[in-house]
Amino acid sequence: MLTGQQYKDSLKDGRRVYYEGALIEDLESVPELAVPLNAVAAGYDKYFSAEPGAVNPVTTAPTSPRELRDRIPVITEMDLLTNTTYQSLMTLSVAAARLEEHAPDFVPRIRDYVRRAREADIRITECITDAKGNRSLPPSRQDDPDAYVRVVERRADGVVIRGAKLHISAAAFGHDLMVMPTKSMKPGEEDYAIACAVPVNAPGVLITNTTYHPRGGDMRDHPVSAHESIPDSMVIFDDVFVPAERVFLDGQTAQAAVFAHSLGLWERLGGVSFMVIQADELVGLASLIAEANGTAKISHVREKIDEMMIHATLLRAGLEAALLHARATPEGYYYPDDMYTNVTKYQGAAQFNAMIRHLHDIAGGAVVTSPSMSDFDNPELRPYLEKYMSTGDGVSGEYRTRLFHAIRDLTADSYGGWHQVTNLQSGGGLFAQRLVTRKNYDLERARALALKAAGLGGA
Amino acid sequence: MLTGQQYKDSLKDGRRVYYEGALIEDLESVPELAVPLNAVAAGYDKYFSAEPGAVNPVTTAPTSPRELRDRIPVITEMDLLTNTTYQSLMTLSVAAARLEEHAPDFVPRIRDYVRRAREADIRITECITDAKGNRSLPPSRQDDPDAYVRVVERRADGVVIRGAKLHISAAAFGHDLMVMPTKSMKPGEEDYAIACAVPVNAPGVLITNTTYHPRGGDMRDHPVSAHESIPDSMVIFDDVFVPAERVFLDGQTAQAAVFAHSLGLWERLGGVSFMVIQADELVGLASLIAEANGTAKISHVREKIDEMMIHATLLRAGLEAALLHARATPEGYYYPDDMYTNVTKYQGAAQFNAMIRHLHDIAGGAVVTSPSMSDFDNPELRPYLEKYMSTGDGVSGEYRTRLFHAIRDLTADSYGGWHQVTNLQSGGGLFAQRLVTRKNYDLERARALALKAAGLGGA
Amino acid sequence: MLTGQQYKDSLKDGRRVYYEGALIEDLESVPELAVPLNAVAAGYDKYFSAEPGAVNPVTTAPTSPRELRDRIPVITEMDLLTNTTYQSLMTLSVAAARLEEHAPDFVPRIRDYVRRAREADIRITECITDAKGNRSLPPSRQDDPDAYVRVVERRADGVVIRGAKLHISAAAFGHDLMVMPTKSMKPGEEDYAIACAVPVNAPGVLITNTTYHPRGGDMRDHPVSAHESIPDSMVIFDDVFVPAERVFLDGQTAQAAVFAHSLGLWERLGGVSFMVIQADELVGLASLIAEANGTAKISHVREKIDEMMIHATLLRAGLEAALLHARATPEGYYYPDDMYTNVTKYQGAAQFNAMIRHLHDIAGGAVVTSPSMSDFDNPELRPYLEKYMSTGDGVSGEYRTRLFHAIRDLTADSYGGWHQVTNLQSGGGLFAQRLVTRKNYDLERARALALKAAGLGGA
Amino acid sequence: MLTGQQYKDSLKDGRRVYYEGALIEDLESVPELAVPLNAVAAGYDKYFSAEPGAVNPVTTAPTSPRELRDRIPVITEMDLLTNTTYQSLMTLSVAAARLEEHAPDFVPRIRDYVRRAREADIRITECITDAKGNRSLPPSRQDDPDAYVRVVERRADGVVIRGAKLHISAAAFGHDLMVMPTKSMKPGEEDYAIACAVPVNAPGVLITNTTYHPRGGDMRDHPVSAHESIPDSMVIFDDVFVPAERVFLDGQTAQAAVFAHSLGLWERLGGVSFMVIQADELVGLASLIAEANGTAKISHVREKIDEMMIHATLLRAGLEAALLHARATPEGYYYPDDMYTNVTKYQGAAQFNAMIRHLHDIAGGAVVTSPSMSDFDNPELRPYLEKYMSTGDGVSGEYRTRLFHAIRDLTADSYGGWHQVTNLQSGGGLFAQRLVTRKNYDLERARALALKAAGLGGA
Repeated sequence: MLTGQQYKDSLKDGRRVYYEGALIEDLESVPELAVPLNAVAAGYDKYFSAEPGAVNPVTTAPTSPRELRDRIPVITEMDLLTNTTYQSLMTLSVAAARLEEHAPDFVPRIRDYVRRAREADIRITECITDAKGNRSLPPSRQDDPDAYVRVVERRADGVVIRGAKLHISAAAFGHDLMVMPTKSMKPGEEDYAIACAVPVNAPGVLITNTTYHPRGGDMRDHPVSAHESIPDSMVIFDDVFVPAERVFLDGQTAQAAVFAHSLGLWERLGGVSFMVIQADELVGLASLIAEANGTAKISHVREKIDEMMIHATLLRAGLEAALLHARATPEGYYYPDDMYTNVTKYQGAAQFNAMIRHLHDIAGGAVVTSPSMSDFDNPELRPYLEKYMSTGDGVSGEYRTRLFHAIRDLTADSYGGWHQVTNLQSGGGLFAQRLVTRKNYDLERARALALKAAGLGGA
Repeated sequence: MLTGQQYKDSLKDGRRVYYEGALIEDLESVPELAVPLNAVAAGYDKYFSAEPGAVNPVTTAPTSPRELRDRIPVITEMDLLTNTTYQSLMTLSVAAARLEEHAPDFVPRIRDYVRRAREADIRITECITDAKGNRSLPPSRQDDPDAYVRVVERRADGVVIRGAKLHISAAAFGHDLMVMPTKSMKPGEEDYAIACAVPVNAPGVLITNTTYHPRGGDMRDHPVSAHESIPDSMVIFDDVFVPAERVFLDGQTAQAAVFAHSLGLWERLGGVSFMVIQADELVGLASLIAEANGTAKISHVREKIDEMMIHATLLRAGLEAALLHARATPEGYYYPDDMYTNVTKYQGAAQFNAMIRHLHDIAGGAVVTSPSMSDFDNPELRPYLEKYMSTGDGVSGEYRTRLFHAIRDLTADSYGGWHQVTNLQSGGGLFAQRLVTRKNYDLERARALALKAAGLGGA
Repeated sequence: MLTGQQYKDSLKDGRRVYYEGALIEDLESVPELAVPLNAVAAGYDKYFSAEPGAVNPVTTAPTSPRELRDRIPVITEMDLLTNTTYQSLMTLSVAAARLEEHAPDFVPRIRDYVRRAREADIRITECITDAKGNRSLPPSRQDDPDAYVRVVERRADGVVIRGAKLHISAAAFGHDLMVMPTKSMKPGEEDYAIACAVPVNAPGVLITNTTYHPRGGDMRDHPVSAHESIPDSMVIFDDVFVPAERVFLDGQTAQAAVFAHSLGLWERLGGVSFMVIQADELVGLASLIAEANGTAKISHVREKIDEMMIHATLLRAGLEAALLHARATPEGYYYPDDMYTNVTKYQGAAQFNAMIRHLHDIAGGAVVTSPSMSDFDNPELRPYLEKYMSTGDGVSGEYRTRLFHAIRDLTADSYGGWHQVTNLQSGGGLFAQRLVTRKNYDLERARALALKAAGLGGA
Repeated sequence: MLTGQQYKDSLKDGRRVYYEGALIEDLESVPELAVPLNAVAAGYDKYFSAEPGAVNPVTTAPTSPRELRDRIPVITEMDLLTNTTYQSLMTLSVAAARLEEHAPDFVPRIRDYVRRAREADIRITECITDAKGNRSLPPSRQDDPDAYVRVVERRADGVVIRGAKLHISAAAFGHDLMVMPTKSMKPGEEDYAIACAVPVNAPGVLITNTTYHPRGGDMRDHPVSAHESIPDSMVIFDDVFVPAERVFLDGQTAQAAVFAHSLGLWERLGGVSFMVIQADELVGLASLIAEANGTAKISHVREKIDEMMIHATLLRAGLEAALLHARATPEGYYYPDDMYTNVTKYQGAAQFNAMIRHLHDIAGGAVVTSPSMSDFDNPELRPYLEKYMSTGDGVSGEYRTRLFHAIRDLTADSYGGWHQVTNLQSGGGLFAQRLVTRKNYDLERARALALKAAGLGGA
């Protein structure tokens, strides 16, 4: 296993990572990239074991409903890259099982890769969403055939791929990119039915970075995002050669969706768990700031907090129901129920902005007008700020100001905006969740109830 | 145990039941009252056993989470009066346990009453909500001291009570009225701390009836309410004498709320279970009518049905979470978790009208303009109605018309209006559910999360 | 001009009107039909003038924005049938002007008909919505070619039509049915491009009736619908001969939509005006019942009434904007702006159920459980009802009960359900209003603003 | 009048302006402050006239409804500081008229000040919101008596004030601070009934700055906020002497609210006009990005844009109604109707987050993951970015990326967060708008309608 420092050293491998137009040789040299780098390194140190043959314990799957539930605190405390590595490995394991019937040649390769990845203690990033071009057309009918990642050359020892993957979190900080088709493919789209693992430093790979990390001012004014930011990337594959042992699907259109479906099983627990915690966190912020503002007993303030608590509890109920009805893969790995997970994500995403509105309504304009912590450092200003930001009664000016900064950072600034967009878009947007609903809801039961009410029930 | 016929005969006991201004001697003589009468009689026949010493099996409480879950289909299929009898008996059993410390004298009386009620196989109605007068004043400060039911005379052998209870379902169809305080009482309000069981035919008891039962036209145009209606009553106690053995609390203000709280445990499973079924039923109606209208594939219609399915599934998740976290009374009886039940009721009530809007939007104006089934009986009209209410493709005019009648009956007529009001008001209105939320939500956990985000988390 | 009695007599003309499966010879003999009959008769008496050559003054159009505004109280006080007659005549007048270029032969016929209808002081009902069959198919591709009203025979002296029109208000109470295409037609659908005026008693016309009028119990429990009900009808045309002078379009598919578009101009003022009044009425009911319940000062009750007031004022703003931007036809008749009218209808319809929820939440369960006024008539019951329905402080039991009945009648019973459905469906459902929005919104202005923000504007 | 350069020079007057903890001698030296400085300077140049005696023409009030309407484009194009100067001068003019009866001594002073301010062509900032301390207590009962700005000393030639004003936009960029009470005051609170004009460079004035201006990265990624930002300030008055001729109220508690009410008249037109434009701008962004994504014809995308158009049009209707019912002050100055303005602000604020959700749902995750414009500058990256951000069909990668940046900047970053908070909070938060509604809605009309419906309308 690797220590954090070994991990950091391992990234100096010639990778082509760009930030704000410049090629970045040393990720640590840019504060916005150093923060996630160090977060992942800390994750390495956390799980490090010097035992020979040791592997990261969180890269295995729960094999009972109880283990599934116990995994929640682990996932929600984990750094993002360790989590996506876990998801990637689990995805490959399940995909291997599912390919046994129709694409058996890939199975040993996949299992080998999983074993080696565990041993080498590498970090792996999932790469799904393609550039997509014109969304009303399939891959094979785009003006630019590279709008979806595809095989442009097949050689004896591997394939050459071209295209780009978008919205890839932390791509620059892992070792391998797990490329998989974004959707099912049809006959004639064989070149798009490609799944493989690409080293980040493979020739032809380029990675951009976009971040919500604060880029100026006092970091204390961003108490969360100063420590937690993860850049999103466009990962470009410019005729990248992938050796055969790293190719996990090539041309089997009927199996193209296996990887994305498998991934879906593993990413949802983390997503919904995070939404539940986030909803509770918003309740907490609303409660603290109402108290600090001296408005906690005002009726309309209480009712808004009530609605936030109801929202958070409904999401928690959705998670509980998904765990109660956990399902097992044929291999005996447990994952939360699709339908309950899905409606919880929908509700969380659809109501998120309404909850933000409540929080802003309760907190007041000082969310965006409070002085900086650096203003508090100025000895001339500090007494005034303490005096006028305080509301008496043991609520210090600095304490209340820090609450405002936390609310701004989480809900009314770059990081807050990122949450608003990604809460909606993760898992494919509200419409995607409606499609899952259509597929999973027990419509026949509902129709039978309705027919009975109408006196039209069967024989 | 009683047969249905024995039950019906037993109600001819001199009770003073009014309907539309008239004293009704024979409940069966009025169609709007005969329907619920026969529904309860059918319930008697369903559970009847000629075994000596047999008692109704559904009047005992679940003693495990599994039994709690298994009770759902039983409750939702049960006639209302059997259900309220069950709730009443369970309430008394739990209340007896809770009174042991501070009001032990009542305990043997209550247990005796429960035993006798089971043996006699009677039906019992809960009477909680008082007239209340001016809602901003407590019972003891009302202009009219009878605004809450109270003891007006205490005799050696019992008490005399006066007042009225409102919104009492099926009061005219049971044998006993279980009177209990609607809320906690304060010192000085001893006369209002009265719980007792009053025979419906006790001198001084008068019962009005208000119903959503269809009162004209063709009953087939009301496929649900023609068979399922239950009148709501005002129950008046005009100086009614209650013998001591039927008095379960008298003057112990500190214990006044014990009965209502106990009742709360038992009524919630039925309430939430019904909401879940109702939500599924609305999905079913939307799906069937969209199909019959030929609009099931139109995008905006599908999306509305999606939202209805998501709503129904969220409610189901709330019920599942409440069952998963079922709690036990000290006696070992299981009931669903308060908080999850409560938010589910809130969500179900708060969103009900939005779901109705979706259904009406999907179904179209024919919900309120479709011809009567009696029009279909007219041989001259029928061919035209079949022709023009059909949408081709195997959808007969009569079938589609029946769907419209079911939708109207359930959502756009007397019964639908009753649902809209009672879904909101059951359990005390949206505001009452907010109060429960405040009491049960784990606010400390939420505040700790928020403090941590703000970098203000303690040691 | 006709008096009310002359009008009533004029309907005894052999028309085939059905109610609950029976042919009704005398409309006055059925209470549910007598109410609208007498309402229309009262309208006749109201406008009656014995002057020779007098015509109903409200059947002419406003010729200035001021006249348009002044028309609102007239329309909202008018009986429905006089209003639809006005709309029909205005529709024909505007349609005549629009047909001058491409279908000039019909113009003199239409103008003649309008003149004669005014002179004869008849009442005319618009018949638009067809049976429609499978909604995903056009008229010409239905299984049943009669799913849309069509010409089945053309004779020298007129045409024979077949089909049915649905959702026709008050069809049985007028003299003529103004048949017009429900939508635009395409080449090949000539037989469906038919507009004409059909006497209600023409051979082959059959009319069903569906009503929300109370059909039992005490009429005082339905303080509104007992006096205001209008049945909705299916109007069947079973090979009805229409003489040439009553045919206003026949086969000109390109002009088929002219009538429906013209009608749209005239019906919208009434529709939106009614919504504004209805919203204010709901505010008033909420305010009165909160006061009667003694809850008018409770914070959450006040906030719900606030939201209802904001809703009502927004609708009023929409009406005001539509009047301010009133437009004129080429003939100089004024009508309210399409876009503002349309968004007002959308908002009113989309939010109606939410407002009903607020009202029910404020009013409480007694909306559906209050005793009948006939219970108040019973001298034994009355003192109790007065006592227990009163909340003290000058709020009598009867007064409060009457408020509950008004709320039930308007929002939680047959009439309330009818409102919920028709508020949504009038003008074609929420989706139809979206289409109007797409057509009328100034999207170019909006896009220019956005391009400017993105720094992409300009040359 | 001053030129832009003269204005900039005039600010080098010893003022104590802080930014991120440092005292800033030259506002132009800090990019985040230079942007607003230059925006105000450009405003000076725009209105500059070298004519002797010329005054800024936009600092006078509309004297007819037409002038009021014509003012909208002027206001929405104006720099913020010119606008607040206009509002300040109008507020003083109206306040002077209103003080004539009860505080006549101040009237000539105010009029003099207004005349001199116009002549000197200075810029004036309104300072209203106090620190407030414990919001459940009035000024006179706070722990810290300075929680509201107050007079701490009265001298023959003026007063000394102490306290702080919060949420002050552009305070560092004007010449005078117009201090006024934030609310009505009661007897005993005379020291808080203070209104006066304080030069920014008066000894004892300190100003902090908080900004949403981008603080790093490529300014082209923030196409709006890079050019439009205005800092918000806390303005501290540490025993500032104000000479008598600049004191406009001192101790007249009954008149304390006159200034805030007058200000309310003038600020609302700009606020609502901006909301209407903003709503249209969001529609435009949604339309452009849907088109660029190739999703403009997808049904659910169209429906979301429909809802955004309906929202924008409803707001516009509210503005139109407010203008149609414009009211005049006794001096003949026109301002938009209170009630219509208020409900429009409420609706705009309450629905803003829902509209943002629609836009994010339509736009997709690239809102927060798109490459920087500086990435496009890199010749190695540019071809890939053009290729993969393009969707074919004439939509260039750069064009689409710029749209994403505009959406991020306006809705999902610092500036977007600032809008979300300030849209809610301007004018006092949603609850404040409810209070205005309660005060202005014609409740009697609504109750009369309800009584009539209930059959309770008296003689």
